[in-house]
Amino acid sequence: MPNPTAAMLVIGDEILSGRTRDANMHHLAQAFTKHGIDLKEVRVISDDADAIVGAINALRAAYDMVVTSGGIGPTHDDITADCVARAFGVPIDVRDDARALLQAHYDRQGSEFNQARQRMARIPDGAVLIDNPVSIAPGFSMENVHVMAGVPTVFQAMVASLLPSLTGGAPILSQSLRIERGEGEIASPLGDLAARYPELSFGSYPFQHNGVYGANIVIRGTDGAQIDHAMAELSQLFPA
Amino acid sequence: MPNPTAAMLVIGDEILSGRTRDANMHHLAQAFTKHGIDLKEVRVISDDADAIVGAINALRAAYDMVVTSGGIGPTHDDITADCVARAFGVPIDVRDDARALLQAHYDRQGSEFNQARQRMARIPDGAVLIDNPVSIAPGFSMENVHVMAGVPTVFQAMVASLLPSLTGGAPILSQSLRIERGEGEIASPLGDLAARYPELSFGSYPFQHNGVYGANIVIRGTDGAQIDHAMAELSQLFPA
Repeated sequence: MPNPTAAMLVIGDEILSGRTRDANMHHLAQAFTKHGIDLKEVRVISDDADAIVGAINALRAAYDMVVTSGGIGPTHDDITADCVARAFGVPIDVRDDARALLQAHYDRQGSEFNQARQRMARIPDGAVLIDNPVSIAPGFSMENVHVMAGVPTVFQAMVASLLPSLTGGAPILSQSLRIERGEGEIASPLGDLAARYPELSFGSYPFQHNGVYGANIVIRGTDGAQIDHAMAELSQLFPA
Repeated sequence: MPNPTAAMLVIGDEILSGRTRDANMHHLAQAFTKHGIDLKEVRVISDDADAIVGAINALRAAYDMVVTSGGIGPTHDDITADCVARAFGVPIDVRDDARALLQAHYDRQGSEFNQARQRMARIPDGAVLIDNPVSIAPGFSMENVHVMAGVPTVFQAMVASLLPSLTGGAPILSQSLRIERGEGEIASPLGDLAARYPELSFGSYPFQHNGVYGANIVIRGTDGAQIDHAMAELSQLFPA
């Protein structure tokens, strides 16, 4: 059975403007690869309601699951939860379970649970909360769409909360070989080898560093023994 | 006149598997912001021909221009040029101008210009070459789609080659203020301020670091005087 497929939607002007370098994509990619979920696509879009609604609906139809990051805080530019409700055509309002979590948190802190903070308790009807042990304000899952915060420490905590509930497949294994020759020299025998292992994927990632150039060849798949075989053949083709 | 819009398409299994952290998105975002081009969307997809063709056609219709990165080397997994030709419905073959560049390069190196390397001279009919001073194999522009290499040093060189030929708009300026208070405390006055400057964008980016928390407020726009005004008001609202 093939592994479940996933897409990620990163919501954030700060990445598209070059102010911030995204970190959540890389974290999710590694977590999903270990868990046996194939991350097939990532989209980064701006804080624009129509763009967010459109992307959620396109991705949830095309993949088994979608993870979003960003836009669920208390400020005016945090519009993700409302966009998810619109995408699913369900109402959204402050929900008692989320409000109770946040009320208790701000009571402990001695801070006011004001109207802006109550925005973080707005949850679309029918969604299931995702635990946030870092800063309490929850994420949520609406059917196959999992909505998480953009702050990396919070995003990572939410991924850890969610992951055990997601059905994964076989972990995707990989081995790599560094070859200090130009890609143009190895391309032909590499292509022939890849053609003989149709269930594995062979990637060639060229590098140039301090005058040394070559390529890292990465063989990926779910059958460890087959990867071992292919890697042995690869090493014979290109001895160090 | 609004700035031209752009999308980026990153082609690479290595990013979706978590093996590599993308660097080209961040570089292009910064270069475009300075040049007055609004990067509105980035998609990362795998080395899959149907996915690449579909994304190119969706993005080139939706935005003024598209930049792709990755998949134009000599190995079997380098399929971007063929996908661009398919997306535009034009033939593709080894082209004389690209072949001459590469032939001269490998002659100088004393390397064989073999069949795999000739793949890098495959250019869709009607495309214009993009200069690659780092490793010679050219990128190309097909109408509003600009096709570049994935290796960061080469990608950056191609962006530098291309940028002077792209019509930009007003550079997008920004100023930011670090406020060491919870977003929930600043959200309401910040939202009111943002509503009074509809031509500017106000972003709130929370941080938590060594027990200190707060938010960086970024004000963006093309009118520097207006940003100055808004920033002065913001500083008065939240004195250090």
